[in-house]
Amino acid sequence: MEGDPTRIMLAVNESTIKGYPHASISSRKAFEWTLQKIVRSNTSGFKLLFLHVQVPDEDGFDDMDSVYASPEDFKNLRNRDRAKGLHLLEFFVERCHAIGVGCEAWIKKGDPKEVICREVKRVQPDFLVVGCRGLGPFQRVFVGTVSEFCVKHAECPVITIKRSAEESPQDPVDD
Amino acid sequence: MEGDPTRIMLAVNESTIKGYPHASISSRKAFEWTLQKIVRSNTSGFKLLFLHVQVPDEDGFDDMDSVYASPEDFKNLRNRDRAKGLHLLEFFVERCHAIGVGCEAWIKKGDPKEVICREVKRVQPDFLVVGCRGLGPFQRVFVGTVSEFCVKHAECPVITIKRSAEESPQDPVDD
Repeated sequence: MEGDPTRIMLAVNESTIKGYPHASISSRKAFEWTLQKIVRSNTSGFKLLFLHVQVPDEDGFDDMDSVYASPEDFKNLRNRDRAKGLHLLEFFVERCHAIGVGCEAWIKKGDPKEVICREVKRVQPDFLVVGCRGLGPFQRVFVGTVSEFCVKHAECPVITIKRSAEESPQDPVDD
Repeated sequence: MEGDPTRIMLAVNESTIKGYPHASISSRKAFEWTLQKIVRSNTSGFKLLFLHVQVPDEDGFDDMDSVYASPEDFKNLRNRDRAKGLHLLEFFVERCHAIGVGCEAWIKKGDPKEVICREVKRVQPDFLVVGCRGLGPFQRVFVGTVSEFCVKHAECPVITIKRSAEESPQDPVDD
């Protein structure tokens, strides 16, 4: 007697730590928190919607020294971006599949904060979960604050999950 | 195999609408949302912690024309405040009892935003739910913004639940 599952959108991104092509620490934290504290054993009561927003500049950072000689080179680059995004989403979808929670995952390109709010408007989840690094005000200025923007502008309730101190890497700006 | 229930703190207050000594529209909205979207059928997986912060000035508003002639009068006033707070909490506790969700409820006095953050620190809930009126920036200036303060300062994740347009009274500052 539960009716439609509660639809939770999770905005997930890649780690900024080099050589670590996986979900960011704060994305994984937000995901595990959602499973532990909200979904719990009621796996049929929830559906998780994973949105990954690819930032063209960031994703191309490793390519600063690359030479693009043909349209083909760009196509390869785009394919590689796509592969990275898919690899990220696969992590979350596999974990959901293993525990029996329904999910959907998709990739968009653009400015994360704007795309997340636009996708909330389109998909109308019951609420949005975003991870955040829990930076101090000084660090925040240079890193941007996707979570703060979403809390203010997303057209659904938003819950922000901070990393715990022991999960933070040496440089807290990394994630 | 669920372990300890997820402890959700809900900050609840009385309606500001005169002659309506019940839970505010936004408190009831936040409560019903929590039951529908989070607790769902998993009643043993959650425990709801209701905190009502009484504001001495506000609660004494009806007494502007009263005359206090003896210490006894103040005692009666305090008893009446207490009765109003208990009446408010009874609404939430009865509803939880009816559907079988564990709960606790208590009253504190002071500035709601500060008391809520202090109680979060003391009680350490898994997250905090606060209702809000969804006022525009102009209205907000004169009403204060408990929810915004908690989002920034509470030491746990916070989810803010807005009233829907059709639930708002004629004067949106009322609640």
